[in-house]
Amino acid sequence: MKIWQISSFGIDHLELRDVPESKPGAGQVLIRVHAVSLNYRDLLTVKGQYNPRMRLPAIPCSDGAGEIVETGQGVSRFRAGDRVAGIFMQNWLDGRLTPERSRGALGGDIDGTLAEYVLLDEDGVVAIPGSLSYLEAATLPCAGVTAWNALVHAARVKAGDVAVIQGTGGVSIFALQFAKVHGAKVLGTSSSDEKLARAQALGLDAGVNYRQTPDWSAWVLDQTEKLGADMVIEVGGAGTLNQSIKAVRMGGVVAQIGVLSQTEEPLRIAPILHKQVQIKGIYVGSRAHFEEMNQAIGANSLHPVVDKVFAFDQAPAALRAMEGGSHFGKIVIQVVS
Amino acid sequence: MKIWQISSFGIDHLELRDVPESKPGAGQVLIRVHAVSLNYRDLLTVKGQYNPRMRLPAIPCSDGAGEIVETGQGVSRFRAGDRVAGIFMQNWLDGRLTPERSRGALGGDIDGTLAEYVLLDEDGVVAIPGSLSYLEAATLPCAGVTAWNALVHAARVKAGDVAVIQGTGGVSIFALQFAKVHGAKVLGTSSSDEKLARAQALGLDAGVNYRQTPDWSAWVLDQTEKLGADMVIEVGGAGTLNQSIKAVRMGGVVAQIGVLSQTEEPLRIAPILHKQVQIKGIYVGSRAHFEEMNQAIGANSLHPVVDKVFAFDQAPAALRAMEGGSHFGKIVIQVVS
Amino acid sequence: MKIWQISSFGIDHLELRDVPESKPGAGQVLIRVHAVSLNYRDLLTVKGQYNPRMRLPAIPCSDGAGEIVETGQGVSRFRAGDRVAGIFMQNWLDGRLTPERSRGALGGDIDGTLAEYVLLDEDGVVAIPGSLSYLEAATLPCAGVTAWNALVHAARVKAGDVAVIQGTGGVSIFALQFAKVHGAKVLGTSSSDEKLARAQALGLDAGVNYRQTPDWSAWVLDQTEKLGADMVIEVGGAGTLNQSIKAVRMGGVVAQIGVLSQTEEPLRIAPILHKQVQIKGIYVGSRAHFEEMNQAIGANSLHPVVDKVFAFDQAPAALRAMEGGSHFGKIVIQVVS
Amino acid sequence: MKIWQISSFGIDHLELRDVPESKPGAGQVLIRVHAVSLNYRDLLTVKGQYNPRMRLPAIPCSDGAGEIVETGQGVSRFRAGDRVAGIFMQNWLDGRLTPERSRGALGGDIDGTLAEYVLLDEDGVVAIPGSLSYLEAATLPCAGVTAWNALVHAARVKAGDVAVIQGTGGVSIFALQFAKVHGAKVLGTSSSDEKLARAQALGLDAGVNYRQTPDWSAWVLDQTEKLGADMVIEVGGAGTLNQSIKAVRMGGVVAQIGVLSQTEEPLRIAPILHKQVQIKGIYVGSRAHFEEMNQAIGANSLHPVVDKVFAFDQAPAALRAMEGGSHFGKIVIQVVS
Repeated sequence: MKIWQISSFGIDHLELRDVPESKPGAGQVLIRVHAVSLNYRDLLTVKGQYNPRMRLPAIPCSDGAGEIVETGQGVSRFRAGDRVAGIFMQNWLDGRLTPERSRGALGGDIDGTLAEYVLLDEDGVVAIPGSLSYLEAATLPCAGVTAWNALVHAARVKAGDVAVIQGTGGVSIFALQFAKVHGAKVLGTSSSDEKLARAQALGLDAGVNYRQTPDWSAWVLDQTEKLGADMVIEVGGAGTLNQSIKAVRMGGVVAQIGVLSQTEEPLRIAPILHKQVQIKGIYVGSRAHFEEMNQAIGANSLHPVVDKVFAFDQAPAALRAMEGGSHFGKIVIQVVS
Repeated sequence: MKIWQISSFGIDHLELRDVPESKPGAGQVLIRVHAVSLNYRDLLTVKGQYNPRMRLPAIPCSDGAGEIVETGQGVSRFRAGDRVAGIFMQNWLDGRLTPERSRGALGGDIDGTLAEYVLLDEDGVVAIPGSLSYLEAATLPCAGVTAWNALVHAARVKAGDVAVIQGTGGVSIFALQFAKVHGAKVLGTSSSDEKLARAQALGLDAGVNYRQTPDWSAWVLDQTEKLGADMVIEVGGAGTLNQSIKAVRMGGVVAQIGVLSQTEEPLRIAPILHKQVQIKGIYVGSRAHFEEMNQAIGANSLHPVVDKVFAFDQAPAALRAMEGGSHFGKIVIQVVS
Repeated sequence: MKIWQISSFGIDHLELRDVPESKPGAGQVLIRVHAVSLNYRDLLTVKGQYNPRMRLPAIPCSDGAGEIVETGQGVSRFRAGDRVAGIFMQNWLDGRLTPERSRGALGGDIDGTLAEYVLLDEDGVVAIPGSLSYLEAATLPCAGVTAWNALVHAARVKAGDVAVIQGTGGVSIFALQFAKVHGAKVLGTSSSDEKLARAQALGLDAGVNYRQTPDWSAWVLDQTEKLGADMVIEVGGAGTLNQSIKAVRMGGVVAQIGVLSQTEEPLRIAPILHKQVQIKGIYVGSRAHFEEMNQAIGANSLHPVVDKVFAFDQAPAALRAMEGGSHFGKIVIQVVS
Repeated sequence: MKIWQISSFGIDHLELRDVPESKPGAGQVLIRVHAVSLNYRDLLTVKGQYNPRMRLPAIPCSDGAGEIVETGQGVSRFRAGDRVAGIFMQNWLDGRLTPERSRGALGGDIDGTLAEYVLLDEDGVVAIPGSLSYLEAATLPCAGVTAWNALVHAARVKAGDVAVIQGTGGVSIFALQFAKVHGAKVLGTSSSDEKLARAQALGLDAGVNYRQTPDWSAWVLDQTEKLGADMVIEVGGAGTLNQSIKAVRMGGVVAQIGVLSQTEEPLRIAPILHKQVQIKGIYVGSRAHFEEMNQAIGANSLHPVVDKVFAFDQAPAALRAMEGGSHFGKIVIQVVS
């Protein structure tokens, strides 16, 4: 089978190799990968910026969807033919995150999905919604689950709430879709009027161009009778957190998600306490979160936004597209066409 | 001004009287009532079955919407011309219910809304959504807030959940609308196929006629891969609670709302604990719940279902229509036409 | 090794047999049982009243504590010498209860702990607090975890709350200890003044003899300025639920725990909704709950109340003591002396 | 009556003046102040550093306790002779903080408690625990309620949890007492070994001198098997937030309370999300929080730690003692001796 392998860091050094297929051991399933989606973390990983001490060689990417082709001894949750996706942290099934559960992230601690086949423990796999294609389902494990966890668990979104999304990357567009399906009003920021228009076609209630309006929190206050938003899905990093704190209402939630920047941010503390702001770090989510989200996607016929599709042998080009940052929603690599 | 007054119990004894208008005292607002909606409690009240020891004479009805025509000294939350509704329990503004807050229910502890004018403390009043007519807004204070509190607070509905409603009365139809706006799947019961069809037009995903299928919980299990529903909005009383407990999933919520029957129900306790069922009594909700709901109604252009409209002088006929039980959604009395 | 086996129902039919020891398979641990504690469920099980269709022969009892003597391939959470207890439902590790997780209860779905050795999956085992003897730790898996789950999760006990316990059985005494360690006030009922005195020595703030005061909810109201208790740990079954609903405050929690009676109870529904009572069924708890509880026990030097100790070959006498109902706290069988 | 008045900023400019007593209007109560306690905010206020645009003249201080001597028309919650304290934000009775409720802070937006008499709305007053002296009760409104809100609501402390407190000021010592009464383990930091010893006498489980161990989060990890604390009561401001984030466990809570410093802090964002840390701003609490806390104080015979007592005419000396920062617990001004 073919795999993409990081032998040394850098997009140019990614190697397409041919290796023997594995056989599923006890409790394992062998998945024929149909599609893989990219996250910003994958780009950082390939470039050696996510974890410079990562052991190489390694297969990148956390997200993929495919079909089970063989099951190991004792497997009871799945059988051959089932359409599935792996979960981001293979050991976080339910409950709260612990150090033990945080180990085993695909495409980081262990080999990822950018391969024709992956071998996973049956516990680390979920059924994908029947209404989604493999291309669509491949986008769910990291960006989808992160947005779901942020909106539904960290911020407990409900109808009539106001949510703010930043930009139009994968997590932000999922957050838009999940907020709308809960009856919330969604405000968004972008550097591009054209992207704001595309987001409005997906349900965004109002948008602001942060290049023209750098103090976008003032715009959020204007849109909310000076009260502020109930929640901000904060993906920005340096420079946006203070704006997000200004943009939320008293007692509002800033779901801190971004690895877009790891810069140190000078944070103003006084407003956090005077407004009783809650900043909640979100790092993807558990298998239970993934299954809940799938239920919501199926029940509401939601479809992830796949912006660009690349062939398997074009994986480096897909990473460059991610690097370019001009996408809207998700970039997907089609493994089986 | 004209009022409807209970001097002695019985629909036939309701009296249409003419009394002098009051002037708002400090902190009070005078509301010209445009519309009043009926709840089953109002029927019981008029018949002397809700509280036989109630002090008479009394003005019935908790729900109404109108326009502020005059404000007393120190009033700061409203001014003349504002479109408003009174809250069910005049002292339950926020937080949890206490004995102190539970006193002061309109049309019960104190005079209600079935009058051309009502005088309320400004704290006991909320602005109604601009998108609703008075006829529509009059349905909100009891049935709307009850359904909101049950779904959003007691059961924490989220997209992909399965909710069960019973019948097609006011609370049940609001519950249908609020569950759908949160992306939930809704199953319903009724004695009438025609009403189920009307409910399906409003978004009901599937319905069952409980006359033909008295063991409707088995039908719910069939609809949910044998897992059960996430929540049941239980309005039935005798005979339905055991079905509701069978119908929910492990850890599911039965929101107990009904005053439809006060019969003693033989309850099977073992399933409650083995399934970790949560039975949560709901008694309307606070002003904060009302305001949240209004936010959701406005943001999503929801419209309450007004089934039948009666003129002010036809109040007894409206109560008889409630007694007949053939309505779907709400019965409203138009005070100002 | 020796085991106690149900070949046919009835305490008199329990058989002490000698069977070969098993070897731990992959992921399993072999535990030398030092002590076993009894729950009312065990008595019902032996008598064929818990699940008359149970497959026989079977080893009864869910609760025990012992030492790991051998570990199977791949075991990473434990090693030989570790002091441990099995969890009640072997598959409920964390999160909410599901049908899948509810299967695998020790001494019910699968063989239990009344044996010299038990073989469990390493995931179904927790370390016991170092401060407890095996006799003490054997009491935790069912009664301890149930009381913890009820107080800490279902009722969210906090300092200053008022909790009511019923009787002085295992769950009730654990509830007393856990409530006191959270700074709550605890009121209790019993048929025996002598037991109330013993409970007071353990921290009970006030007690009432329900034989002399059958309407004990009125007494609870007297003790709470007519407001009612914040929570009742309801173990009674028929006859006590209506009292418990009267005894809690508006919005209070009745944690429904008891399998003491499976009688159908005529339940008054109206007070549930007017008082917004929450009845929450509790069926033991997850491994995560067990670990939390152990943390609390260790940090606060709590010691379970072991009332009577029987030798391993006296298991039938221990069950008869449970049947007699005169115990206070837990009955324990010492396997290794 | 005598009042202390800020006519121009600076401790030296505080004026002791004699003004006529007011009479309670409708809904108001007149309180004879027996004791006033100081918070760091009061020092900043007097020096003009809390709100430089504050309207002068003004009476400082938010916290006090006294006896009701006269009630206005319609007052129903209290009567003359009742022992009471005012709530910090006079309009925040229950529910979540809103802009409307956040206005009306004593000793800031409106005149404070550093006077022989204060006039408050009856809704802005709570009964103090009968077990406390006026000197003790005067410490509750700001520091006590803040610590309660942080531990019980923001961090949901439960037995067995590990809480970290910083220093030995008023909030920190209350947090110590409230955490201990819930069965938690408490770790503390201080610049003084002697203060750590005093804190240990009050129940602190272990302490570290942050002058000797500036990287005190590493010490917290050592004390918690490398897992981190469940919560940090963060009062420090610049320099401590990053340490606090390192010190909490995955999913842990940092309750951000401090106005000790308003310096901009360079915050490392990546650990917040990878550890799913929750930073929750706390700004005192509502009347409902205050009443809950009083319940806990009464039920557990807790006594606030009054470190230094000054006479009313020594108020400037009391503020200088606060400025000196050598206190442990609270500084109180005795108005009636």
